Amino acid sequence: MSNEVVQQLIAELGSAVVLDEAALEASREDRSGHRAAERPLAVVRPGSIAEVQTTMRIAHASRTPVVPRGAGTGLAGGAIASPGAIVLDVSGMDRILEIDEDDELAVVEPGVLNGALNARLAQSGLWFAPDPASREISSIGGNIATNAGGLLCAKYGVTREAVLGLAVVLADGRLIRTGRRTVKGVTGYDLTALLTGSEGTLGIIVEATVRLRPIPLGGPVTIAAAFPDVEAAAAACTAVTAAKLRPAILELLDSGSIARIAEHLGEAALVGTPLAGLAPGEAFVVAQCDDAGAEADAVAVAAVFEAAGGRTRRSGDVAEGERLLGIRRAMHPAMAARGEVLIEDVAVPRSKLAEMFRAIEAIGARHGVEIPTIAHAADGNLHPNFVYEGGEVPAHLWAAADEMFRTAVRLGGTLTGEHGVGILKRRWLADELGPDVFELQQGVKRLFDPLGILNPGVMFEPAPPAR
Amino acid sequence: MSNEVVQQLIAELGSAVVLDEAALEASREDRSGHRAAERPLAVVRPGSIAEVQTTMRIAHASRTPVVPRGAGTGLAGGAIASPGAIVLDVSGMDRILEIDEDDELAVVEPGVLNGALNARLAQSGLWFAPDPASREISSIGGNIATNAGGLLCAKYGVTREAVLGLAVVLADGRLIRTGRRTVKGVTGYDLTALLTGSEGTLGIIVEATVRLRPIPLGGPVTIAAAFPDVEAAAAACTAVTAAKLRPAILELLDSGSIARIAEHLGEAALVGTPLAGLAPGEAFVVAQCDDAGAEADAVAVAAVFEAAGGRTRRSGDVAEGERLLGIRRAMHPAMAARGEVLIEDVAVPRSKLAEMFRAIEAIGARHGVEIPTIAHAADGNLHPNFVYEGGEVPAHLWAAADEMFRTAVRLGGTLTGEHGVGILKRRWLADELGPDVFELQQGVKRLFDPLGILNPGVMFEPAPPAR
Repeated sequence: MSNEVVQQLIAELGSAVVLDEAALEASREDRSGHRAAERPLAVVRPGSIAEVQTTMRIAHASRTPVVPRGAGTGLAGGAIASPGAIVLDVSGMDRILEIDEDDELAVVEPGVLNGALNARLAQSGLWFAPDPASREISSIGGNIATNAGGLLCAKYGVTREAVLGLAVVLADGRLIRTGRRTVKGVTGYDLTALLTGSEGTLGIIVEATVRLRPIPLGGPVTIAAAFPDVEAAAAACTAVTAAKLRPAILELLDSGSIARIAEHLGEAALVGTPLAGLAPGEAFVVAQCDDAGAEADAVAVAAVFEAAGGRTRRSGDVAEGERLLGIRRAMHPAMAARGEVLIEDVAVPRSKLAEMFRAIEAIGARHGVEIPTIAHAADGNLHPNFVYEGGEVPAHLWAAADEMFRTAVRLGGTLTGEHGVGILKRRWLADELGPDVFELQQGVKRLFDPLGILNPGVMFEPAPPAR
Repeated sequence: MSNEVVQQLIAELGSAVVLDEAALEASREDRSGHRAAERPLAVVRPGSIAEVQTTMRIAHASRTPVVPRGAGTGLAGGAIASPGAIVLDVSGMDRILEIDEDDELAVVEPGVLNGALNARLAQSGLWFAPDPASREISSIGGNIATNAGGLLCAKYGVTREAVLGLAVVLADGRLIRTGRRTVKGVTGYDLTALLTGSEGTLGIIVEATVRLRPIPLGGPVTIAAAFPDVEAAAAACTAVTAAKLRPAILELLDSGSIARIAEHLGEAALVGTPLAGLAPGEAFVVAQCDDAGAEADAVAVAAVFEAAGGRTRRSGDVAEGERLLGIRRAMHPAMAARGEVLIEDVAVPRSKLAEMFRAIEAIGARHGVEIPTIAHAADGNLHPNFVYEGGEVPAHLWAAADEMFRTAVRLGGTLTGEHGVGILKRRWLADELGPDVFELQQGVKRLFDPLGILNPGVMFEPAPPAR
């Protein structure tokens, strides 16, 4: 049967069907460190909506699972080969179909990289605001499939706020279009929002109409600050928000993170920053203000930091700002240099940030693991990092993560702020949602994908095989 | 049977069940001018979530239709008595349960008026941004049920962007909670967004956690301008956006609207405004800038208006600004003074604003009706007004509206930007959505409300009676 499916794909799609070992192997992984148990049946690289539809028609008729995949930068195992599946890799559908400056929108294929769209837009003075830390390598289709957040979304919104409309191929190969080219519109249920963040389990996003914004004029002015401990740093961030200040970026790094970054970059990289001569246990915050009031806002942010016990440095120089932010951006490479990294993604209400940092420290101590943690402090989203040796995530790390998830939910938050549920967090989904909402969510899945062929095992535990 | 249902409601809910004529009559209408054919079975005015659940359990067991209703200010017939229905009037559930300044959120019951929440927030420097023109009389539950827009949403987003979480009673009486208290969160499908704008057809909103924003500092600076004709005014508004200017308010009134307002307010009210001495055919735009750069932005907006042929007046005085905006706000009373008003609600991409105004004029001429039209110009949302004598909307007005809807959709827009589908626009829903999306929407409805008891006839044509 599976051989027949492959033959049929080849007959109808020719060279879009890729069977070489390297491609099949590559599709087993994303950036989570998790690796699928098996290779897929085939990788299909469609060049058009019609080829996506053909793939889905063949898959539907043969009940073959399909894993939609973009740039493969996911952090939750949401787009990796599952047994007997076709991996539908849309990364080659990467054309920017339209930029409409008057209506401040772009129409893009799903494989367009976030950074590529912004590079193309630079001359127009417009900008696609969602900015996952992976923006240079992640695709807009993937940003939408996970409702990606990023550093700027407390001020500029998550991906959902930037999606006006979608073209989606359904499980049976039909093409639908949701939404519109207008900012407002309330005809019927908001399927555009429902599909945003659905992790490839409801349909294949093949085109998106996204909202653009004017690039903020003024700034950036960057403020970096060192604090005696992470609680003081968290309190300082909460105080910034309470003072009604709205920096575009507000990133917090605990002492474990800074130690790893200092090792990775070398002490020289920290000279002239508040991190030079940092004492053990100290924490670091970097903020950036933009817009017309950037300079005044930055002065006010620095004052709040100093009142909270911070040693600050403020600069309106773009290169200097990039250098300060670069410390934050070095986090992932610094961790990756030490082994495999599991990057977690809890979010809590802003006011609970210090409490959550405290809890993570206690959990780490209890389980004997170090958990360097950074936070998008303006929206309460924390990324605790677990480093381990290659292979599967060890059980004691999952035990620590489990405690962390439950703490976040108890504090009014969530187990995933922006990475998605994928495979890695599905076992906690029902706990956070409760049985009635979980049942409705499964109903939504069945409505869009009655045969269960779209990304099985993602978000929900896999169903027993169909007979 | 229906008598039994009423007896059961009384037995379990006592004085929350209202049967007096005035209440039953009042529930036949909203602000659309449409009137239900019959009175409902009863009006229930619950004081608690538990009473809503009791009502739904009784309704579910007896398959009695339920019409959720808030302040009754809807403009699409979405919350009016349907035959044999219980009207579930939640306007008495109007407590502000919590305001959390640190986390910038409020938890409210659905009957809280939009304006009442903002009055309560004034001292905190925070603000609930969704601002339908009806904000003083419309409830937050209703704002959410219709995903209300308003004057400010090109800059500050529609209601969906301000809803973090909901408590909802399902058709069978179960209570669910969706969303969370954090800005970010991607566990499972976004049911909060799906329920926002669902017009009471999926569940009863009994509590909402809404996002607050800091009140913008700086401004308002108001700019009013008169233009030779509506196309020049529309082009000027498009030019403001193209210049990357982002006034909080950008309202356009065509000559028919101004004429009605001038009659209603009297010429004296226009002295000292660009409308004094207005020539026939001229159109009017009023803009308001806020935030740190308000004054500079307002100067730039005025320059764009003047370059486009406008006679402008700019003022940083709050009272003067209110007076200029008051001209726009007089639109509804001015129209209502002439008869029943059907306020339509098409939206088009900003760049098509002039074309849509032209089309409305042509449609009016063809059908022999005057259609005074105003627009939230920054988001392309137009409100064409039809005046008629009491009773049902005459057929020739619907014929004109029908042409208007089709034109808006052809231009990449929608038949309703912010009022909702309700009863009045359900016959056009499938046309805009297309058959496949319409079928999915009906599937969503069946998933949440398998017996079809929630607001039957709203959004979708009523099903044939169950046997």
